[in-house]
Amino acid sequence: MNMLEIIENKRDGKALSQAEIRYFVEQYTAGVIPDYQASALLMAIYFQGMDRAETVQLTMAMAESGDMLDLSDITDYAIDKHSSGGVGDKTTLIVLPLVASFGVPIAKMSGRGLGFGGGTLDKLESISGYDVNLSDADFRRIARETGIVLAGQSQSLAPADGALYVLRDVTGTVASLPLIASSIMSKKLAAGTSGIVLDVKTGCGAYMKTLDEARALATAMVRIGVDAGRNMVALLSDMNQPLGVAVGNALEVAEAVRTLQGEGPRHIHDHCVEVAAQMLRLAGRGARWADLAVTHGEVDRALRSGKAFEFFRRMIAAHGGDLRQIDDLSLLPKARLRHDVPARESGHVAAVHADKVGWASLALGAGRKTKEDAIDHAVGIEAHVKVGDAIATGDPVMTIHANDDGRLAAAMAWLEEAVEISAEPVAPLPLFHGVIDGAGN
Amino acid sequence: MNMLEIIENKRDGKALSQAEIRYFVEQYTAGVIPDYQASALLMAIYFQGMDRAETVQLTMAMAESGDMLDLSDITDYAIDKHSSGGVGDKTTLIVLPLVASFGVPIAKMSGRGLGFGGGTLDKLESISGYDVNLSDADFRRIARETGIVLAGQSQSLAPADGALYVLRDVTGTVASLPLIASSIMSKKLAAGTSGIVLDVKTGCGAYMKTLDEARALATAMVRIGVDAGRNMVALLSDMNQPLGVAVGNALEVAEAVRTLQGEGPRHIHDHCVEVAAQMLRLAGRGARWADLAVTHGEVDRALRSGKAFEFFRRMIAAHGGDLRQIDDLSLLPKARLRHDVPARESGHVAAVHADKVGWASLALGAGRKTKEDAIDHAVGIEAHVKVGDAIATGDPVMTIHANDDGRLAAAMAWLEEAVEISAEPVAPLPLFHGVIDGAGN
Repeated sequence: MNMLEIIENKRDGKALSQAEIRYFVEQYTAGVIPDYQASALLMAIYFQGMDRAETVQLTMAMAESGDMLDLSDITDYAIDKHSSGGVGDKTTLIVLPLVASFGVPIAKMSGRGLGFGGGTLDKLESISGYDVNLSDADFRRIARETGIVLAGQSQSLAPADGALYVLRDVTGTVASLPLIASSIMSKKLAAGTSGIVLDVKTGCGAYMKTLDEARALATAMVRIGVDAGRNMVALLSDMNQPLGVAVGNALEVAEAVRTLQGEGPRHIHDHCVEVAAQMLRLAGRGARWADLAVTHGEVDRALRSGKAFEFFRRMIAAHGGDLRQIDDLSLLPKARLRHDVPARESGHVAAVHADKVGWASLALGAGRKTKEDAIDHAVGIEAHVKVGDAIATGDPVMTIHANDDGRLAAAMAWLEEAVEISAEPVAPLPLFHGVIDGAGN
Repeated sequence: MNMLEIIENKRDGKALSQAEIRYFVEQYTAGVIPDYQASALLMAIYFQGMDRAETVQLTMAMAESGDMLDLSDITDYAIDKHSSGGVGDKTTLIVLPLVASFGVPIAKMSGRGLGFGGGTLDKLESISGYDVNLSDADFRRIARETGIVLAGQSQSLAPADGALYVLRDVTGTVASLPLIASSIMSKKLAAGTSGIVLDVKTGCGAYMKTLDEARALATAMVRIGVDAGRNMVALLSDMNQPLGVAVGNALEVAEAVRTLQGEGPRHIHDHCVEVAAQMLRLAGRGARWADLAVTHGEVDRALRSGKAFEFFRRMIAAHGGDLRQIDDLSLLPKARLRHDVPARESGHVAAVHADKVGWASLALGAGRKTKEDAIDHAVGIEAHVKVGDAIATGDPVMTIHANDDGRLAAAMAWLEEAVEISAEPVAPLPLFHGVIDGAGN
């Protein structure tokens, strides 16, 4: 096996064999293949793509480059979800306790955020004491005892993906569909899950701007999972406007708590009901929760009854988080400055540009520009309106939570053009643009 | 300036600016830009190409990455030639003394060979004592005193090209037209020449297998030279059969000497007359040697009169070479074994596959597989027939000169299928398939 030949084969548009892909991933992880050959191959993949078999092989090779979690001491069917990231996306905080409240064990590893906002771990760290760094033993113990655990991702999962991602980031080879799909899925496959619900966002606030791009990514990920023997479903979710109202770490925790108590904004409530119902459908394996419409009702009741919130409290407690902040949301980190952005005119909301809200949130310090940046958990934005809403001049369309006058001004500049108002009525945006069911792939 | 942005621009098909290209070449040569970013850019160039302006800028930046030779103490118009390499190509050994004999100073640096056969330096080292490693002072002194010098290429010429070539060689990015053209031309531009005759080979024994490929490479190189203010002409030479009869270092020196004495095989004689006439035409700058047909006659006379050979003797003596080996060719290195390959049938030669002859010569030890390989100056092949020749069963079509029975057998295996014979008459191959004149570009 010869790395130069592998590069030339891909460069010339040939499909790489399983042996070639394994050789590349294993020898690169072992430090035998140098970065300069890996980056040449990545750029060749950028141009020539990878077929379904190659993409699966790459994913499996990266997944198997480190530990492959075995969760059989926790559950015989581990269910997971993955979001491709969006503005105001606190779905994980809500749906995991929600699903766990149905007796489905949840043992999930999550990541930090880079870009617009914090990741799930960053959001959880808004709560004093919440410890995301668990030993393997503690991770399993909490899962067994509590029925839910949500910790940071182990460095020993798919290390090849980690190393290749760092290289892609500095060589212009991030934006390749098979590389994106295999990167995400390698961590999922290594994490010991049997079923995965993908929440693939599309729109101005998502990585995939168009529905076609999102559908292509979702299809690629679903196929990888199916070929690797997993149950898969992908939701194509709208990310043209923020998800829910709150954007920013502590603000999103508060919104998650209210949603878990059945009092969340309808937008995020409905989104989470669908994601949870899909997770339950997979976890039920045909024996339970097969009828989505029925499950929607059960899920909705679990939110309104306090059952889901109870699992959230258990999880926070098990991770050492301060429950007082959950039971009294006013104790969560609070920003010093609060500024309302009023509507300039009356009419109907035609757009709430999620990307502009995201940039504003980043400007406030709610996200990271580089891995080394610290996050300010208190700051963020509340986007009070959704596309289709009727508003009057002077109504607050946004509330900015800031800790610094300069950052407040920067956020205001981003938000100035974020809301578009039309004189004519505007139809609301759908929550979802489609579903890709792995059973059909 | 940001290397990642430069990679992304090229990846996305944008033309790089002069500033971007300079930044890349300078910072890569300085060791600031790492190999893995350089190889990603090279692969992006492989796929997206470079336009005329980019190719010229890349060439200039590489040329200026080291010393730019100033030959004005030797001549006010330095003329050079470059061959893209072929089987039996001893043209440089012949045309440089030939052109020098017209009073045109020749101060040339040449390279070693990798692949089928030795390079010009390897061939010259068949002559005992010939020293290719000259100090800059000796290089200039010999050029001034003798009118001709032919030495090894200084490491300080175009170091960026040297470093990038090493990287291309291991990352599958050699076979890119703008990269090949800029690599060759950067060394030529740094070598202080005003006019360059390119001898671009095409056919089974050349790097460029098709005439279209050869024409594209020649056009790219001519345009670079023209845009850099040089006088350029490119000959598209046939390389489907070996150039001349001799293939192998000492064998080629002997053929060069015979040709310089007016007694060479017609094939190589005519090829060299054309190359020399084109060099004189450029060197004459319209004032002399403007009429190629007339110059052909003058050049032919310079070979037959012994004038050209006299300059070859001067050059050998100035470099410390043993003139006795030139005056008595039987004193050149001689192989131990000699084997004739007879024609299997009567008829007309339809093909003498230059590539097979090249592989046979490499098998004998006349060339290098890797840079570290030693060359055997004595071994090689004489290909006695050309396409179109009439032959009879048993006529020797090849003579193999070997120093080892195993290598002899390997060469014979390659040569078994090298000559094709047809019952019908076959038209000879042309020496040249075309000329690209820089004055028209």
